[in-house]
Amino acid sequence: MKDTICAISTPAGIGAISVLRASGEQAFAIAAELFPKTDFPRIPPQHAQFAQIIDHDQVIDQVVVTKFAAPRSYTGEDMVEISCHGSIFIQRKIMEMLVERGCRMAQPGEFTQRAFLNGKLDLPQAEAVADLIDSQSESTHKLAISQLKGSFSKKIHLLREQLVQLSSLLELELDFSEEEVEFANREELSRLLAELRDEVEQLIHSFKIGNVLKTGIPVAIVGQPNVGKSTLLNAILQQDRAIVSPIPGTTRDTVEDTFNIDGTLFRFIDTAGIRQSDDTLESIGIERTYQAINQAAIILYMVDVTLSKPEDIRAEIARLNEELNLSEKQLVVIANKIDELEALPEHYHNWHDLDILFISAKRKVNLGEVEDRLRLFIQQHKVQDATLLTNERHYSMLLDIQSAIGRIQQGLSSQIPTDLLAEDVRVALHDIGCLTGTVTTDELLDNIFGKFCIGK
Amino acid sequence: MKDTICAISTPAGIGAISVLRASGEQAFAIAAELFPKTDFPRIPPQHAQFAQIIDHDQVIDQVVVTKFAAPRSYTGEDMVEISCHGSIFIQRKIMEMLVERGCRMAQPGEFTQRAFLNGKLDLPQAEAVADLIDSQSESTHKLAISQLKGSFSKKIHLLREQLVQLSSLLELELDFSEEEVEFANREELSRLLAELRDEVEQLIHSFKIGNVLKTGIPVAIVGQPNVGKSTLLNAILQQDRAIVSPIPGTTRDTVEDTFNIDGTLFRFIDTAGIRQSDDTLESIGIERTYQAINQAAIILYMVDVTLSKPEDIRAEIARLNEELNLSEKQLVVIANKIDELEALPEHYHNWHDLDILFISAKRKVNLGEVEDRLRLFIQQHKVQDATLLTNERHYSMLLDIQSAIGRIQQGLSSQIPTDLLAEDVRVALHDIGCLTGTVTTDELLDNIFGKFCIGK
Repeated sequence: MKDTICAISTPAGIGAISVLRASGEQAFAIAAELFPKTDFPRIPPQHAQFAQIIDHDQVIDQVVVTKFAAPRSYTGEDMVEISCHGSIFIQRKIMEMLVERGCRMAQPGEFTQRAFLNGKLDLPQAEAVADLIDSQSESTHKLAISQLKGSFSKKIHLLREQLVQLSSLLELELDFSEEEVEFANREELSRLLAELRDEVEQLIHSFKIGNVLKTGIPVAIVGQPNVGKSTLLNAILQQDRAIVSPIPGTTRDTVEDTFNIDGTLFRFIDTAGIRQSDDTLESIGIERTYQAINQAAIILYMVDVTLSKPEDIRAEIARLNEELNLSEKQLVVIANKIDELEALPEHYHNWHDLDILFISAKRKVNLGEVEDRLRLFIQQHKVQDATLLTNERHYSMLLDIQSAIGRIQQGLSSQIPTDLLAEDVRVALHDIGCLTGTVTTDELLDNIFGKFCIGK
Repeated sequence: MKDTICAISTPAGIGAISVLRASGEQAFAIAAELFPKTDFPRIPPQHAQFAQIIDHDQVIDQVVVTKFAAPRSYTGEDMVEISCHGSIFIQRKIMEMLVERGCRMAQPGEFTQRAFLNGKLDLPQAEAVADLIDSQSESTHKLAISQLKGSFSKKIHLLREQLVQLSSLLELELDFSEEEVEFANREELSRLLAELRDEVEQLIHSFKIGNVLKTGIPVAIVGQPNVGKSTLLNAILQQDRAIVSPIPGTTRDTVEDTFNIDGTLFRFIDTAGIRQSDDTLESIGIERTYQAINQAAIILYMVDVTLSKPEDIRAEIARLNEELNLSEKQLVVIANKIDELEALPEHYHNWHDLDILFISAKRKVNLGEVEDRLRLFIQQHKVQDATLLTNERHYSMLLDIQSAIGRIQQGLSSQIPTDLLAEDVRVALHDIGCLTGTVTTDELLDNIFGKFCIGK
């Protein structure tokens, strides 16, 4: 960590300007060599200075250079930022000059890794930086910002403190093990563990939503062939995404695309129509439809209003209820093609108990009602406000923590010796440490920061 | 020009950081609204300040913001630079916030256009900024930097001053036209015009090289089928660019690629072999070969050393000399496939008067000699040091100036009345003004700055 690293921090390619960064003990000394005509040491920290980069008497570029002195920098080390003209040649040339004078090209995420190692960020906060950069919708952006501000870390730290307290009482008992005293009130411990477990399980539970928000809430559009599923997809996406034809069975592959509603990303999956088919390709398509239904959080079940009867739909919903775990999914029944009816005939009034949306995908009638149902989903799941887990690593660590707590609880209830109980608590503490970064290994850090983009 | 513009100035896409800029009278006031928790007015100019962008109580990002106060900024106006996390969402969101609060999205090149209109740069310097950003090799980069520093502008301004002096003497004569005096010594005028014309023609001449440096010096590889042209191209490019087979006539399309030698870009054009052919596709290929030869600055004429006799080659060179204007091109004769000879047989010594390079493209023998010839071209044309014209607009303006000077010279020699002569001089002055930007029209500016990237 003593060496000085450098990278192009702005997106790759040509632009008006690009920004290069160097960080480490030699950052100021190395950068000074790039500006022979500038009194580099006398530039005050955080002062954006116009200066010429010169290599062997050749002007390379006119840039703005800013020094950030340790510890008041992103990495916590001495840092230099150079804002140059965004030509490929200039970017490469300045990088070359930095490397020739002793910098090393940074690994992905190495700036943030240094920020973590210098205590500027804890591990979940550092991980949030990558999520922040990747965020494409308001929801994922909010999650990352909240994690970056430490909302997630705070919960974890609270958990850990409680467990440390519990652990210290148990360790105290071990010191007096001959005397068979109980410093740690076992009932109180039980209550604490239950509380901890609640917190952990809440976070684990939030992963489903958090993860889904990152990739888009999956919405499967299903129904018999030719009820207008692809037409609805195109209408929602406002583009010709899926091929539409009057021929039943046009869609074979599941067609996917994402759409942003009120800042939340939805991932729509247009599926092959469900029917018995001898066509192999179509059969494969139908199989994929069932997969899509399984993965979906919301199912838009479409029927053709001109062909369907309420009793059929009731039967179909009953069947879906049986086949799928609808308690975890939201089902929205949509009767399409109302444009082909003169008016809604008398017997359609019976449909009202079914909670059906009547639409015309073709004429884009009542599509707002479909979107309202999706908005309802966001509200019901409190997608906007909760502390949500979005990170695979956090999820898997929390599962470990959950089972560690389970083991302690089991030990408590079967009254195992204090030394075994204390050991179980130590395991749980270690697992939490891995989550927050108080316990780290090189492998863990490589894994986390390797996923970053270069220059962050 | 009173409105405040904003743009994302770094390359498009996701990166560690992105930079947004706003420029104009309201830049500080608008930016201040983005940072409700920061005492924005009290941030000193050119101070890089950590701050939170907040929209309706939601933290959007933690950024570094820098103010540049007029006239000490790129545009000469009040400017704000925001260095944010490089997520697509954040970039868009901050742009939205700026626009909502009164900024206008900048047109391509609008920042530089304002720099020009505020007198921070003259027109050729402003144009050099676009060239600088586009530069991909050391040569083009040098040209752009030299133009940005004003080396080209200086020459032009010198020309203009001389012409202004000439013009004022003529105008003085017009004031005394009744008296038939000659304030402007016609002989001196003639000398001055000749000098001017020399300068202009030198610049015009430099365009060929300057322009060629931008796109790469064109090198045509020509010769009969199957002499190893594609193999040589691949060997020089150090990659499998062209399809190689022992079948004569494999190459039909001209295959092009660029390669950087000592910082100068060369554009190699592999051509179809020249022979009589009944195959229509091959014939089209051969036609293109002649086009490539016409456009080339350097012709690598290849022969198969195992099949050719010196007298054939002499005849072929004579033919090429006849068909092409070889005084403007450099011809390099290359005898390929020396790997297929045991040794260079006796009669090949006769070849020495031909100035032939003996190589093996397949075994990569003596390829350095080919590159040396290309280096020689750079030296001979003083590509590295001269003030070279690279801009189409400058070229066409200089052609106008050239003919304007021609008209004055003609007028002088046929002793036309002073008022007509003075008018011709005015035209020349106007043309020079258009070149340097002392005379501008909206259309001209739109044309120039429309080619810039957004955010510059």
